[in-house]
Amino acid sequence: MNKGERTKKYIIERSSTLFNTIGYKSTSIAEIMKATGLKKGGIFYHFDSKEDLAKASFSYSLMTLKESYLQAIMSKETAKEQFQAFTSIFMTLLNNDILVGGCPLMNAAIEADDSNILIEDSVKEGFSGLINIIKSIIEFGKNKNEIDEHVDSEQMAVFILSSMEGALALSRLYKDKRYLDMVIVQIKSLLF
Amino acid sequence: MNKGERTKKYIIERSSTLFNTIGYKSTSIAEIMKATGLKKGGIFYHFDSKEDLAKASFSYSLMTLKESYLQAIMSKETAKEQFQAFTSIFMTLLNNDILVGGCPLMNAAIEADDSNILIEDSVKEGFSGLINIIKSIIEFGKNKNEIDEHVDSEQMAVFILSSMEGALALSRLYKDKRYLDMVIVQIKSLLF
Repeated sequence: MNKGERTKKYIIERSSTLFNTIGYKSTSIAEIMKATGLKKGGIFYHFDSKEDLAKASFSYSLMTLKESYLQAIMSKETAKEQFQAFTSIFMTLLNNDILVGGCPLMNAAIEADDSNILIEDSVKEGFSGLINIIKSIIEFGKNKNEIDEHVDSEQMAVFILSSMEGALALSRLYKDKRYLDMVIVQIKSLLF
Repeated sequence: MNKGERTKKYIIERSSTLFNTIGYKSTSIAEIMKATGLKKGGIFYHFDSKEDLAKASFSYSLMTLKESYLQAIMSKETAKEQFQAFTSIFMTLLNNDILVGGCPLMNAAIEADDSNILIEDSVKEGFSGLINIIKSIIEFGKNKNEIDEHVDSEQMAVFILSSMEGALALSRLYKDKRYLDMVIVQIKSLLF
């Protein structure tokens, strides 16, 4: 990685935290300049526009998260362990361990539903990817006779993701992991 | 209601849509002036600050929603009918029928979790109120032997609300009610 690529990566890393915390529309160039310590020209040498940087930042957040999920799940030999690994990574969104500001998908979805942000298609792709990861865990569990074969994998995956995203928002609001814990207990008793 | 009160109510109604759509931090005084057709002085004659107006607007959205829920549920004689009534009102958040911009609680929660908005306590109260409404439906169902008496009402209410809020965000993002439909099917099969 040469110096230019390193600077570009540095800008993306710093900006992704801002975008995920303050929002894509609300984050100003001034705030990005402050967070990176770079001048306007230094930032826009690497990106065509704020939208271009926003897209790159969102992709970066999403990739970081997706890699964490896949890496955690990969090595597990039962669906129960895989789901446990999935929830462990999801739980980090509460304490800003891997990413700061909560779930980048949910944050962007709430922002995108009634304002025009250019990453809307990436948000949809991101959610579909996450639903597919959960679906794979369920299918794996069905094949291993851990999960009832009559469970509708798609429907159950949407139910699991929805409830975990909703509970994450509650737990972040109340600064109390109880909500997420309660939902995970319910999901486990449904699946296994 | 005198002219002053009518103007105040008019400002709140118009602003609540803006706040719920664009967000509490992002909504500018200029946009409120445009939406109400009033000058700055005309707005701040009725409110001490933007924060003051934001609080009043959030309370208005919340009260509108809460009244709709209670009114729909009140007349129903079984928990199943009550839950059906609850989901019917919740579904209107998808099509902006009662309020524009999605669930005011979820929108504000996502905004409040990592930025300092002054309505945070009202958001918490609002969610607790909504969890209590669902809890009442479950308790009612237990008393009527419609719902298994071993169901933990609090935990189940949090699970139901979380999953519906998460699914609403997905359905609004994809502009497809399928997600909310799938989650409601799952909840019904859990409860009844």
